[in-house]
Amino acid sequence: MEKFELTILGCGSAKPTTRHFPSSQVLNVRDKLFMIDCGEGTQLQYCRNKLSFNRLNHIFISHLHGDHLFGLPGLISTFNLLNRTAELHIYSPMGLEQMIKPIMDYCNYDMSYQVFFHEFDTNQSAVIFEDRTLTVTTIPLKHRVPTCGFLFKEKEGLRHIRREMIDAYEIPIAYINNIKAGADFILPDGEVIDNAKLTTPASRAHSYAYCSDTMYHPQIVEQVRGVDLLYHEATYAAEHEAKAQLHFHSTTLQAAKIAKEAQVRQLVIGHFSARYDDENMLLEEAKSLFPNTILAREDQKVLVDD
Amino acid sequence: MEKFELTILGCGSAKPTTRHFPSSQVLNVRDKLFMIDCGEGTQLQYCRNKLSFNRLNHIFISHLHGDHLFGLPGLISTFNLLNRTAELHIYSPMGLEQMIKPIMDYCNYDMSYQVFFHEFDTNQSAVIFEDRTLTVTTIPLKHRVPTCGFLFKEKEGLRHIRREMIDAYEIPIAYINNIKAGADFILPDGEVIDNAKLTTPASRAHSYAYCSDTMYHPQIVEQVRGVDLLYHEATYAAEHEAKAQLHFHSTTLQAAKIAKEAQVRQLVIGHFSARYDDENMLLEEAKSLFPNTILAREDQKVLVDD
Repeated sequence: MEKFELTILGCGSAKPTTRHFPSSQVLNVRDKLFMIDCGEGTQLQYCRNKLSFNRLNHIFISHLHGDHLFGLPGLISTFNLLNRTAELHIYSPMGLEQMIKPIMDYCNYDMSYQVFFHEFDTNQSAVIFEDRTLTVTTIPLKHRVPTCGFLFKEKEGLRHIRREMIDAYEIPIAYINNIKAGADFILPDGEVIDNAKLTTPASRAHSYAYCSDTMYHPQIVEQVRGVDLLYHEATYAAEHEAKAQLHFHSTTLQAAKIAKEAQVRQLVIGHFSARYDDENMLLEEAKSLFPNTILAREDQKVLVDD
Repeated sequence: MEKFELTILGCGSAKPTTRHFPSSQVLNVRDKLFMIDCGEGTQLQYCRNKLSFNRLNHIFISHLHGDHLFGLPGLISTFNLLNRTAELHIYSPMGLEQMIKPIMDYCNYDMSYQVFFHEFDTNQSAVIFEDRTLTVTTIPLKHRVPTCGFLFKEKEGLRHIRREMIDAYEIPIAYINNIKAGADFILPDGEVIDNAKLTTPASRAHSYAYCSDTMYHPQIVEQVRGVDLLYHEATYAAEHEAKAQLHFHSTTLQAAKIAKEAQVRQLVIGHFSARYDDENMLLEEAKSLFPNTILAREDQKVLVDD
């Protein structure tokens, strides 16, 4: 099976605690790594989780608050120290480049690689990344500053050719891609071998939506409808709904409500306020409305399987 | 006894490892806290070590390399989040303010407190901080960029008055400070009570020198002569002396040689290169020349006593 796996590097909120690192995650899509947010300490957590620096070329920053980006200068500098040559692409709301260029340039007067900043408009959803296997689309959120979540969506894959059929019918390599795309194979004597006999169905296209930071914002339901995995912030317990609204954050029940209405397969809640010693209480609240919920925790891997 | 205690928050070098945080330390001088360097993750380590944010007003940055300062934006923002009102003073070589102001201002458009940058010339030693109990003097070092270490030196204290003597001779409060400073006390009938009977000797004035990052630089010996505690970087093992010189760092034996020639009481080595899995080997090398050496490690406290 082709891998689609999320690793949580940090799931705390802005106030530092001894329990959490600030926000950062890595999504592994068929061994390409995509980082989402990059709070202070991210590179340390990245090493602890034995993730490969070579496989990381794209970083997505949800908004310009320190607990989502203060790990960038260190990560950029470390790449330079390691003599990285591959381009690094950073996607964010407007202003990131202007903010971090001075510290980045001062500490790396001789860069071994190029950093490209791609700044997007947070008012409307747009595809900001696309390759052969995946698209990344922004999800406009509602926070104190311009903020977007990100929808990672695998493209429909090709069918899998059955190894033994290649041998049995002596199928030339040049035909393989057509067959994966659905073509039948015609033998030299004119006999048609049906595609269904030659292949097994394509892997299911997986999807992941990251929504943090945001207050309860039901407009996102349509965009995250039916995703395999939804990470939604749940900074506050249900009893602190007024506080959540004041600070443009969500409660456990609000996160669960989004998950339920969007009929996602699984919900991960995170970005916990430092005030809660017992996060299981937060989990129980969310589960009361959306049972297939888990708590984010550092170094946790969430595998999306078929 | 009045406290003079060093807490190591991070003692790794620039390349991240799972063993270490980058450079940061806190010196507690009679419950005032002084931070030395502030690598990424410092605020997290600060919390883990249960140090008080309220007692920290002065941060000393040795040089403008990321592994010594990338924790500043996070720490400055956290203070703002906690509605700090006390001034924060940051001492560093030239350029720090220009480098971190953009990221600091963007993330904290409404600061609850003032940050003052004090930038010093790294070519000559100077007293950059002084209060009632302490002076901090720069120690010019030799690194790839302008760098200074810091000498923390307690002032000679006052003698300690013996509580029971105050009662026995009914000494008025107005006289106490004079007696602590060495004066005798004269009774109403003219009898002179000798100061030696009224007091015990002042606590010894403690001293600590921080020297990182630097290549072997014997010119510092005079400045650190006789200190109670010397932190000297030992990025490399003795066999990698050529590499140390190339990168403007020191070896274990070079650190020990400085300690020995300066006749310090105790040496702490740190800033270990990520290449060494076994740091005890580094310790043994340093001890071969200067036996009273210890390895820095995260969350370690080194108490300087009488």
